[in-house]
Amino acid sequence: MIETDLAEKVFNNDRRAIARSISHIESDNLKADFLLNTVYSKTGSAYKIGITGPPGAGKSTITNQLTKLYRKQNKRVAIIAVDPTSPFTGGALLGDRVRMNDIGMDNGVFIRSMATRGSLGGLSNKAIDASDVLDAAGFDIIILETVGVGQSELDIAQAADTTIVVLVPESGDSVQAMKAGLMEIADVFILNKSDRPGSQQAFTALQTILMIKDHDENLWLPQIVKSVASENKGTDEIANQIERHKKYLIEKHLFDIKRAKQLKVRIKNIVEQRLKNHLWSDISEGSLSASLDKIINKNVSPYFAADKLIEIFKEKL
Amino acid sequence: MIETDLAEKVFNNDRRAIARSISHIESDNLKADFLLNTVYSKTGSAYKIGITGPPGAGKSTITNQLTKLYRKQNKRVAIIAVDPTSPFTGGALLGDRVRMNDIGMDNGVFIRSMATRGSLGGLSNKAIDASDVLDAAGFDIIILETVGVGQSELDIAQAADTTIVVLVPESGDSVQAMKAGLMEIADVFILNKSDRPGSQQAFTALQTILMIKDHDENLWLPQIVKSVASENKGTDEIANQIERHKKYLIEKHLFDIKRAKQLKVRIKNIVEQRLKNHLWSDISEGSLSASLDKIINKNVSPYFAADKLIEIFKEKL
Repeated sequence: MIETDLAEKVFNNDRRAIARSISHIESDNLKADFLLNTVYSKTGSAYKIGITGPPGAGKSTITNQLTKLYRKQNKRVAIIAVDPTSPFTGGALLGDRVRMNDIGMDNGVFIRSMATRGSLGGLSNKAIDASDVLDAAGFDIIILETVGVGQSELDIAQAADTTIVVLVPESGDSVQAMKAGLMEIADVFILNKSDRPGSQQAFTALQTILMIKDHDENLWLPQIVKSVASENKGTDEIANQIERHKKYLIEKHLFDIKRAKQLKVRIKNIVEQRLKNHLWSDISEGSLSASLDKIINKNVSPYFAADKLIEIFKEKL
Repeated sequence: MIETDLAEKVFNNDRRAIARSISHIESDNLKADFLLNTVYSKTGSAYKIGITGPPGAGKSTITNQLTKLYRKQNKRVAIIAVDPTSPFTGGALLGDRVRMNDIGMDNGVFIRSMATRGSLGGLSNKAIDASDVLDAAGFDIIILETVGVGQSELDIAQAADTTIVVLVPESGDSVQAMKAGLMEIADVFILNKSDRPGSQQAFTALQTILMIKDHDENLWLPQIVKSVASENKGTDEIANQIERHKKYLIEKHLFDIKRAKQLKVRIKNIVEQRLKNHLWSDISEGSLSASLDKIINKNVSPYFAADKLIEIFKEKL
């Protein structure tokens, strides 16, 4: 398929064209470049929701329930589920299967899993690229779901308009969330599985932590929603909080500022990724191995060798 | 202090000089460069052990017990504990305090915590740099302890001669480990807290997963050690497995090959990090903002802008 045709089909919400476009993005080929340049002008109307949290917190169940709620409002929903995991398993296959049975048959829903295969660095770029395609395809809501375990995943969750952090009452979870930097990025908290013992303590602990953070009345104060996603309890309130946050962003004229900030991060990431790709195609294995021998023989240090390689790279540019 | 003096003091195992050197590395200054080039020739004799696993698995307790065991053998032990966490908490302070009371008063032990402060990318480089300093200072054993939650932390654990993955019997943990890529990097498994219910099932599950992996008789097959680190149960067996792995590496002539491979990864990471630093000092905020305006107005795509910025960077080089 010629790429202009592909873009055209994406604009017409052709599911196969969307899937193929994301595959181009995943394989990082030239078609993806052309496509992304083409679709970009049509982006900007989808509302992006990021959902993150520790493994097993119930992120996909919440995503599914939210999706069903938005479908009742006749909104079209796209889900990008990012699992930054091993080449060994290829991602959360079980979760996908459950999800597909639940909402996968709905034509107003598009679901795509993206897993790293050894290249975590590029994944957040690629997930955001995929959201451009879905945005251009006219989806009203794009949900970016990621396991909150590393910087890359936080990057993805932060690329959304509203970022939701899902926690469970298990002891220490709120502390872990704090340590993992999740507290800083949350616009909405969900305390899922809130029918479990210890739920009230976890709620209080979380609230205390939130209160410690400096805030003035103009600043957004995230609310904590208690939910039992498996029984669809709390879904309406989650949607309300997302709506409340959206209104806040618009009323305080923060919406465009937030998107501009995200764009800046995105460009920086793209530049770094591209330069990295240039780098290792320009520097031969030979130069690297030669440096290696010298270092092993303790003639030079790794830093000295690195500087030499950068010199080579500069000359090649 | 002049840097040659500092290096000299490091060689003499001066604790304050070691601490100061690692601080230079953390703040990424020119003194660190000079120092790392100087100390490198004296590295290579320490045996490096990487310990990783999910939060709360008992990594620091195991590290402490192993340290006490090695101290009885009169080996000098350095510990680098990496906590890739929030600027909010500044790392595992509580754990550090417990640790200091336990082994921190011993002059044959050196403990250093390194936490990211917004710069996860550079942390694995810095932890490995710090291990160079400790190696040159004459420590026999260097333990690199990291939370197994992201690529960076796996990089650190893999920079060791023997990599240990710590799991607990909680359901799903072995599956999570598999998903997080921990299975591929483990030379030794520890099933800690093995007095808990479900321990035998977890052991069997883990063993089954290990058996699925292809292996011939020449290949290293990691053993699973059951431990209760809080009661110092299993520590001897952990040390035995580390020793067994060391012997295997030496007998199969894999030791130098492994270190050369690690060195290659290390140089690549240093080159990428340095280039990244060059990049954003060469590209002005002005160029970035100009691009940003065009993208926001949908005149160009982020990819187009990124390519323009790379052009600017090439010209500056």
